[in-house]
Amino acid sequence: MADQAVADFGLIGLAVMGQNLILNVADHGFTVCAYNRTTSKVDRFLANEAKGKSIVGAHSIEEFCAKLKRPRRVMLLVMAGKPVDDFIESLLPHLEEGDIIIDGGNSHFPDSNRRTDYLAKKGIRFVGSGVSGGEEGARYGPSLMPGGHEEAWPYIKDIFQSIAAKSDGEACCDWVGDAGSGHYIKMVHNGIEYGDMQLICEAYDLLKRGLGLSVKEIADVFAKWNTGVLDSFLIEITRDVLYYTDDDNTPLVEKILDKAGQKGTGKWTAINALDLGMPVTLIGEAVFARCLSAIKDERVRASKILGGPTPEYTGDKQAFIDDLEQALYASKIISYAQGFMLIQNAAKEYGWKLNKPSIALMWRGGCIIRSVFLKDITNAYRNNPDLENLLFDDFFNQAIHKAQGGWRNVVSKSALWGIPLPAFSTALSFYDGYRTKDLPANLLQAQRDYFGAHTFRIKPEFASEKYPIDTDIHVNWTGRGGDVSASTYIV
Amino acid sequence: MADQAVADFGLIGLAVMGQNLILNVADHGFTVCAYNRTTSKVDRFLANEAKGKSIVGAHSIEEFCAKLKRPRRVMLLVMAGKPVDDFIESLLPHLEEGDIIIDGGNSHFPDSNRRTDYLAKKGIRFVGSGVSGGEEGARYGPSLMPGGHEEAWPYIKDIFQSIAAKSDGEACCDWVGDAGSGHYIKMVHNGIEYGDMQLICEAYDLLKRGLGLSVKEIADVFAKWNTGVLDSFLIEITRDVLYYTDDDNTPLVEKILDKAGQKGTGKWTAINALDLGMPVTLIGEAVFARCLSAIKDERVRASKILGGPTPEYTGDKQAFIDDLEQALYASKIISYAQGFMLIQNAAKEYGWKLNKPSIALMWRGGCIIRSVFLKDITNAYRNNPDLENLLFDDFFNQAIHKAQGGWRNVVSKSALWGIPLPAFSTALSFYDGYRTKDLPANLLQAQRDYFGAHTFRIKPEFASEKYPIDTDIHVNWTGRGGDVSASTYIV
Repeated sequence: MADQAVADFGLIGLAVMGQNLILNVADHGFTVCAYNRTTSKVDRFLANEAKGKSIVGAHSIEEFCAKLKRPRRVMLLVMAGKPVDDFIESLLPHLEEGDIIIDGGNSHFPDSNRRTDYLAKKGIRFVGSGVSGGEEGARYGPSLMPGGHEEAWPYIKDIFQSIAAKSDGEACCDWVGDAGSGHYIKMVHNGIEYGDMQLICEAYDLLKRGLGLSVKEIADVFAKWNTGVLDSFLIEITRDVLYYTDDDNTPLVEKILDKAGQKGTGKWTAINALDLGMPVTLIGEAVFARCLSAIKDERVRASKILGGPTPEYTGDKQAFIDDLEQALYASKIISYAQGFMLIQNAAKEYGWKLNKPSIALMWRGGCIIRSVFLKDITNAYRNNPDLENLLFDDFFNQAIHKAQGGWRNVVSKSALWGIPLPAFSTALSFYDGYRTKDLPANLLQAQRDYFGAHTFRIKPEFASEKYPIDTDIHVNWTGRGGDVSASTYIV
Repeated sequence: MADQAVADFGLIGLAVMGQNLILNVADHGFTVCAYNRTTSKVDRFLANEAKGKSIVGAHSIEEFCAKLKRPRRVMLLVMAGKPVDDFIESLLPHLEEGDIIIDGGNSHFPDSNRRTDYLAKKGIRFVGSGVSGGEEGARYGPSLMPGGHEEAWPYIKDIFQSIAAKSDGEACCDWVGDAGSGHYIKMVHNGIEYGDMQLICEAYDLLKRGLGLSVKEIADVFAKWNTGVLDSFLIEITRDVLYYTDDDNTPLVEKILDKAGQKGTGKWTAINALDLGMPVTLIGEAVFARCLSAIKDERVRASKILGGPTPEYTGDKQAFIDDLEQALYASKIISYAQGFMLIQNAAKEYGWKLNKPSIALMWRGGCIIRSVFLKDITNAYRNNPDLENLLFDDFFNQAIHKAQGGWRNVVSKSALWGIPLPAFSTALSFYDGYRTKDLPANLLQAQRDYFGAHTFRIKPEFASEKYPIDTDIHVNWTGRGGDVSASTYIV
């Protein structure tokens, strides 16, 4: 059988992403074996796109495994969920100890945790890898976020780093960390993508309804923004989308139905944030904004019943546009700061070693949120890998300080004008809450102790004999009722 | 054995809530049998609080069941989770077909769904009941929200409605609906409670740091508010808490540590909202606000590094306080509107028949969120049980219309002053988004189609031969790449 083993890398799943990844790997000097359950797809691919390249095919899992050099490197690009488990099971009889299975689909990280463990017990090294960049990324350089069984990394590093996007000569791919951490980082990436897109939509809405700009004028604004601090893939494609006209020479975007779906990784990120108790408010609002968009029919009825102000802008429009640019920039800083707070906490919670500068680097190129901005984040974490919060980095602290005048003006005006900016607003609320030494949660704790005897603690500076520090305290607020605290009963 | 069966009702779990509920039931002319795993508690209870009342005890599950009239009505007031399942299992051998088990703890509704099914198969009728009102409510009139096996209702209705709180002569207890719906409604109640408390905290913070009022002056404001549209238990206790002084004659609340927990039903509500795709933004922000409060040490460090404006109020303070009252009222309307949107959607999703006027009625008295306001909600749903959204009711539409000037002023000023109002702000964003016919999600859909070929749909008014209605459309935005849409590949 050994003579059959010609391929450096095997890939299962010949949809567009899989085909493009194979072509990308082959372009970098590796021989790839392609397999697909519907084997006619293999033949078609070999006869067309793969023709003349270092690509071979297989018509069965057995043949596929036989054609791979040891340790086998098998990548799955199939639907997340059961198909991944099914392929793993059908691969197992044909694999040997030390072989590597890589899941490149959009799997939920707990599944990747489970698969890492399950396969480790069988001597197989599992890798769950985030893959971002869509069709074009897969073909010419995706962002790759592999995590799982660390022993696999030396065997796949060459291939992964050579096919990944490059940013200033560095590959947008590095080892993320243990177990499901690769898919976790991809999930947070997607959550941040939800946030970035929502911020852009709010800016567009404010330029349109607040300042009364035409779509063409708004496109010009995004074109200009793409040359400054906001320079990024999403700003760039927003510009393109806004310039795109229909046959009647009007902007197509205005004809598109304003209903967005949200049943995916954005939701997972928000739920995970709630589970870990991390205030990732911007992604939360971005997911909810999609939910609100989805109930279009109800909104249409509401628009006829519920009144509000009519915005009429009279000042210097360019000054306001500049404020808006700063507001978008500052909100984006908050969103990424929240994302990294979540990641940092997840690492602690799940016991993962994670490399923060590398995460920012992996997002710099190839993926949907790629931007100049991520270079500054990479630098922040390279300057100080133990940075507690992105906002504590000098560069971002100064950036947000400079931005906050415009940011506050935009949020303030939108409230008066009746134009919803949920993501901008929550970002500002977070910033102001985060930099507040004494939040009003003291009152909340008093309320809870009042009605449910849930107890509270005392601020260290007010500790006394009566109210000692680090102690659960209950007060009989009313003079009635008992002194029994909630630990002794169920509410 | 029949002669032993003296009790109308049995209760397991003699912590304070259980004891108080037993006393409440006995006060209403029913004989109650009490049981607790640690049986010394039974003896102590019988010898003290229960003395001279129609209360008997049992020292084993067998004895307990023998003492109950048929069909047995057994209520569990034990820790949610495994203890509930354990008691159910130990009860089963001693129960007969048609007997009723009521779980009055804070169980998560999927557990109550499961238990309803499981016990129905064994001929036992299960009820999962929300119980709210704390210690005092349990003793003198809680809000009760029972749901589950509908056949149980006629057998427990008398007891439940007689012990429940009364509002204008009506019991704050009615049959909620199928399966876990009783615990579901309790969960949403708690989520709304999170929201109400957060709104009050934000108002207090703004009065303190924005207007510079003393705690005593703030207490006066809440005292006055408690005589108007905000009249409610939570405003009332806020007044009391703010008036409460320590031995040194300073307000105790100012000494309480501003760190709040959030690992409960508020979080469940937010996660469920995300799962059902309903924009319950105010509860979401309230939960995240608790998360942010919890990282106090990090906030203290941030407060020394991150700058912001210094609020200095110069205008008419009373006018601003009146605006704030309206802002709080309007935000509360939004929160309840969102809560009922969630409930309505859950009923659809889980196939429950729910009685919306009754839900509002159950919350009118006895529970933590009890208020005059809930009378208006009850009326709104009584006037029109099919009301699509609370905001469509004339009373609330007018109320929010009248309130919005003040509301916008408050949100707008807080952004300029640097005082975080996440719940007020998200409520206003929701209102403005909800009444918007065309949200900017059209741009979002265009972006998704651009980078991932996720397709979009056309607005009906712009449908054409090229872009037909109700059809997934993909456009080649760049002139490059393919015309393959995402349904054909995995991203």
